[in-house]
Amino acid sequence: MSAPLAAQHDGRIRALTPRPEAFLRRLAGRPLFACAVASTDTAEIPGISAAGETPEKRRYTAALDAEFLVLGRPVTLPEIPKNPLGPPSPVVITRAALAALDLEALIIDAGIRVAPQTPRLVLGGAPGRCITTGAALEYPPGLWENCRAAGRWLAASAPWLILAESVPGGTTTALSLLEGLGVPARGRVSSSMPGGNHELKDEVVARALAAAGLPAGASALEVAAAVGDPMQPAVAVMALEASLRVPVVLGGGTQMAAVAALALRLLSEGHPGKVENLGLATTRWVADDASADLPGILGDLGGSVAAFAAGLDFGGSAIPNLCRYEEGLVKEGVGAGAAAFAAFLGGWSHADLLGRIEGVVRGL
Amino acid sequence: MSAPLAAQHDGRIRALTPRPEAFLRRLAGRPLFACAVASTDTAEIPGISAAGETPEKRRYTAALDAEFLVLGRPVTLPEIPKNPLGPPSPVVITRAALAALDLEALIIDAGIRVAPQTPRLVLGGAPGRCITTGAALEYPPGLWENCRAAGRWLAASAPWLILAESVPGGTTTALSLLEGLGVPARGRVSSSMPGGNHELKDEVVARALAAAGLPAGASALEVAAAVGDPMQPAVAVMALEASLRVPVVLGGGTQMAAVAALALRLLSEGHPGKVENLGLATTRWVADDASADLPGILGDLGGSVAAFAAGLDFGGSAIPNLCRYEEGLVKEGVGAGAAAFAAFLGGWSHADLLGRIEGVVRGL
Repeated sequence: MSAPLAAQHDGRIRALTPRPEAFLRRLAGRPLFACAVASTDTAEIPGISAAGETPEKRRYTAALDAEFLVLGRPVTLPEIPKNPLGPPSPVVITRAALAALDLEALIIDAGIRVAPQTPRLVLGGAPGRCITTGAALEYPPGLWENCRAAGRWLAASAPWLILAESVPGGTTTALSLLEGLGVPARGRVSSSMPGGNHELKDEVVARALAAAGLPAGASALEVAAAVGDPMQPAVAVMALEASLRVPVVLGGGTQMAAVAALALRLLSEGHPGKVENLGLATTRWVADDASADLPGILGDLGGSVAAFAAGLDFGGSAIPNLCRYEEGLVKEGVGAGAAAFAAFLGGWSHADLLGRIEGVVRGL
Repeated sequence: MSAPLAAQHDGRIRALTPRPEAFLRRLAGRPLFACAVASTDTAEIPGISAAGETPEKRRYTAALDAEFLVLGRPVTLPEIPKNPLGPPSPVVITRAALAALDLEALIIDAGIRVAPQTPRLVLGGAPGRCITTGAALEYPPGLWENCRAAGRWLAASAPWLILAESVPGGTTTALSLLEGLGVPARGRVSSSMPGGNHELKDEVVARALAAAGLPAGASALEVAAAVGDPMQPAVAVMALEASLRVPVVLGGGTQMAAVAALALRLLSEGHPGKVENLGLATTRWVADDASADLPGILGDLGGSVAAFAAGLDFGGSAIPNLCRYEEGLVKEGVGAGAAAFAAFLGGWSHADLLGRIEGVVRGL
């Protein structure tokens, strides 16, 4: 257990919730890393996301992230996604951290329009409509049974899991899901844009919630169906099922806080799962985002989901497009924070991990 | 290592090739069990298969096997596949053995027409045409890269792997692939029918090879494209990639001998892989099948693929439809032999495993 504590001491791993030690101690051995990808028409709203250079290119963001993560190169288009101002997708962090740990990523298709040209675990979900319809998701028959089966299988395959995501527009659907579940989130979710785009998000989410007209007693999965994205309920149900057996780290920032909120609501509705096996890991950029409030959201969830920030700092990088992460141009995605968290837990120093990330960026 | 050796001594595990000890010793820890499912129009030929009651129902055999294996119940139709004379699909053995080992199965979709209603790892392959076209398979772009990525991922997830199959009509495509690769197999592959249906198989395969008109220097993957089924090259490429890192047990009888032959040919063509990490496990019913010659085929492959038979014997079962396995009505499928092999390696007695299998059958 000295590695995690040492990592905590020098700032590589920081706890965002009280009493994280018991959860951290259970993260022994090599995790399984899975990344759930999904599409929503919400991402088509102009100005909603910077996870990709243009709205057209954002349709390919999740596929390209998945391809680069698994195959080491994009297939569907010639280049991996980047912020309109230049910085590359956070998948470069994930790819470097998983390689450092000698881990391979599993792509989970939670409902994607442009399928990545990688092996992908299909659950049966469909892409999401725009949340402003108030009827964002269809749940095909058997979806929950598939998600539970996948969760059982994942849990039987490794001593602990990281479940990450690549869903463009996902912080907006995080906001709508949190608000729909009654968790105050306005002005508190992160964004792929510096300073956030809270006004646009608020307006879209207000329209979504008005269109949904959720009754007071709406169930967790009804709320997600109305104003969520396909990744959220799929990952929540998989994570709960897996939590019966092993610790599960949700890999992401405020998007995964929304998944955690959904999972906690499902638990309160009697869905099986173990809250003490649920955690979350993200980046310092999300944890310290002055335009958001992840710690506050986690606090409103009761602090029961152990949460951590990986102390990535690209200020000293020799690569200008990595330095720009420090401006808030890119903060999280594709489980970058959780993958770095796992690398730090595994004993990697910040300097060595940064060197690996720079190597990945130079190879682009 | 005492468990495997003890299991060998009392007949629960029998070696079918010389010097199996080195391979057996490397099978330590909990394996990952994956079952590749695929469809071919070859299975539509009347009389070609008894893996399902009727030709119509055989279209659902692989989906139902997968559903029962993963979910514990069939979804697409009300009942699991059975031989026209009554005995249930060998999936009952696989399900019982995996449950005994507390393992969950991963379904790999190598190209199936009726997709199982389970999570499934999609590789991108398509269902196969009838081999009598001589042009059975299309290889979409990226298929091999996906198979290699899946192999790497599987190998990173467990200390050893079992790769099994459910492909109706698969012993006929095994015959055509073996013959196409120059391995004498006429009269030597098993069948889902007692006594085999060698005449029909021979006629179909002769037409397939004539239609294919394979040139003398045809590559391994060209032979499979002409007269194979989608499972064969997908599993061969995954197994070779995984063999670079961990031992891989091909779960099946003469169908997996054909996959082994394909893998060995790929190796000889320079495809990366480690032959010492390739093995095969099947049932006693296939190994001792008087209408076939698995040991002979394995010998013709040079004996380099360590092979084993699980000593299942249903003669003493209280369930008549299980006893009928001893008549040769059902011999193998869905990795039944390899799953029983793993259970015996894991220390399960024959009596206890049979009791578990009977429990599964009673629950149908």
